[in-house]
Amino acid sequence: MRPPVPSWKLAERIINGEPAALPRLLTRAEEGREEVRDALDLIHRNTGRAHVIGMTGVPGCGKSTLVTRLARAIRDAGRSLAIIAIDPSSPFSGGSILGDRVRMGDLAGDPGVYIRSAATRGAMGGLARGTLDAADILDAAGFDLVVIETVGVGQDEVDVVRASHTTVVVSAPGLGDDIQAVKAGVLEIADIHVVSKCDRRDAARTVTELREMLALGGGARHAGSGWTVPVLGTSALKEEGIAELLAAIDGHHRVLRESGALEGRCREIAERRMLKAAEEIVRENFARHREGRVASMTDRIVSRELTPHAAARELLRLSRAATGN
Amino acid sequence: MRPPVPSWKLAERIINGEPAALPRLLTRAEEGREEVRDALDLIHRNTGRAHVIGMTGVPGCGKSTLVTRLARAIRDAGRSLAIIAIDPSSPFSGGSILGDRVRMGDLAGDPGVYIRSAATRGAMGGLARGTLDAADILDAAGFDLVVIETVGVGQDEVDVVRASHTTVVVSAPGLGDDIQAVKAGVLEIADIHVVSKCDRRDAARTVTELREMLALGGGARHAGSGWTVPVLGTSALKEEGIAELLAAIDGHHRVLRESGALEGRCREIAERRMLKAAEEIVRENFARHREGRVASMTDRIVSRELTPHAAARELLRLSRAATGN
Repeated sequence: MRPPVPSWKLAERIINGEPAALPRLLTRAEEGREEVRDALDLIHRNTGRAHVIGMTGVPGCGKSTLVTRLARAIRDAGRSLAIIAIDPSSPFSGGSILGDRVRMGDLAGDPGVYIRSAATRGAMGGLARGTLDAADILDAAGFDLVVIETVGVGQDEVDVVRASHTTVVVSAPGLGDDIQAVKAGVLEIADIHVVSKCDRRDAARTVTELREMLALGGGARHAGSGWTVPVLGTSALKEEGIAELLAAIDGHHRVLRESGALEGRCREIAERRMLKAAEEIVRENFARHREGRVASMTDRIVSRELTPHAAARELLRLSRAATGN
Repeated sequence: MRPPVPSWKLAERIINGEPAALPRLLTRAEEGREEVRDALDLIHRNTGRAHVIGMTGVPGCGKSTLVTRLARAIRDAGRSLAIIAIDPSSPFSGGSILGDRVRMGDLAGDPGVYIRSAATRGAMGGLARGTLDAADILDAAGFDLVVIETVGVGQDEVDVVRASHTTVVVSAPGLGDDIQAVKAGVLEIADIHVVSKCDRRDAARTVTELREMLALGGGARHAGSGWTVPVLGTSALKEEGIAELLAAIDGHHRVLRESGALEGRCREIAERRMLKAAEEIVRENFARHREGRVASMTDRIVSRELTPHAAARELLRLSRAATGN
């Protein structure tokens, strides 16, 4: 049996345009193994070309269908794309809400489309960190666009979406107030709003509600960039609105570049990724010492000899020791 | 002007049964100020008596009304309680969904009830850490029960609920599949399910759905403890089901104690709190160095000289330096 190919070699192959190396490096990166660090270093130096798009919406909002249609439009325009699906209910992730109909369709076998399912997360979280490392790899592999599809609930998923250049928030018509409240944190970060299923009669109301929300200051993130957050209607049934969505995505990227806002957004992304990676290192060390030092500190917290905060400081000392410097 | 009372002195007063000192120490604890650490040390050594209950459910599920009714029943039984409301839409937090009707009612002025609103969180998160420190303070103050009310969405809020001895999940009748999917992570951790608004005709279906979910393995957290997760119906309108809820809360605490499962749960809570506190220290250091070292690392990530992971390791070194050991 041959020894496994080292990760840095997989990285080299990917940068040199060999997509066959993608699945193995993506898996290792998502798992966050220590030995993959050098490879991600090399990958990171070769990123910065792709337009990274976060696409989010609650389960059932129709975003997987939308992503499929969008992928078709991107391919028709002669561009390549990678999709990272981290919605566990997404058909791309092996879910079956919409069944095989949208699973791949005529995109299957097209080397200009790469679909990566990241439905699982490591035991210690790390969903955001792993997904963004995966986006780096797909960027370095040369895809023009990297679309990250998430269900948009939970801090980790919001972090992923915020780490995109362009955030598309998909809403279905007729969602109640409850769900809107749940989604409030995500609605605010949209660069583009899409109301799906616009063949439905109640879609117009949802469009109006989103426009009213934006008029009340929902577009604050874009102050000064010259970008006005659009509310677009799409219908997968009637195949409408997809070209407009792609035009808006491209338009947003152009405005980011031309206004100079792109740099600010890239800095924001870099900060978030740094923080996420630090939290993950702490969690890894927690897991590593769980049977030993962590267990004895836990005993002492339970018996009130130690506060959680004092234990946390000790945990950070362990984390620091583990960073090897 | 007199200098502010030191936090350790406030802690002493609280332990000695002077509730007048509560608001100041709670505020300082939630803000996570460094100088409050000694006080929380003292507080922590005096905890362990209160039964901490996490009560969660999406906005509009009726949980604030339920908490008010429950508070009345607890007082009628001659026991004291503190409520920490971290649902920003809760009337206890100054929200107005249900208005003044449930705000305090006949509980106002009763020294056996203490209501704390924690609607805001620090700039660096820390909602879970701050809330659990507040629960410690209210425990040390001698309240028999501490009820933490949360909206149950987002990792931080789930962390709070998981750090309770007893978790009550409130569902309203007729919530759609979307919201159920959103709530899935919370449904799993329930020790007690409540279906509110049981005067409504569609309540029976929600009760059945929850029971089916439990039959499919939803009570796995309780394996071996001898506890069977109940699904209770309540009606604030008809004032029904509250005594049964209180009996279930007490029953769960008794089973935890008698089966020995309480220790396991307390260890789990200690571990979570340790980890949350460590993450908060990292975020604080990130904020502290944001204009300096963090900014220069951000520059180097954006220019691809440094990976987010390498920057994270450096950030942890800064965190360690700041812990002063």
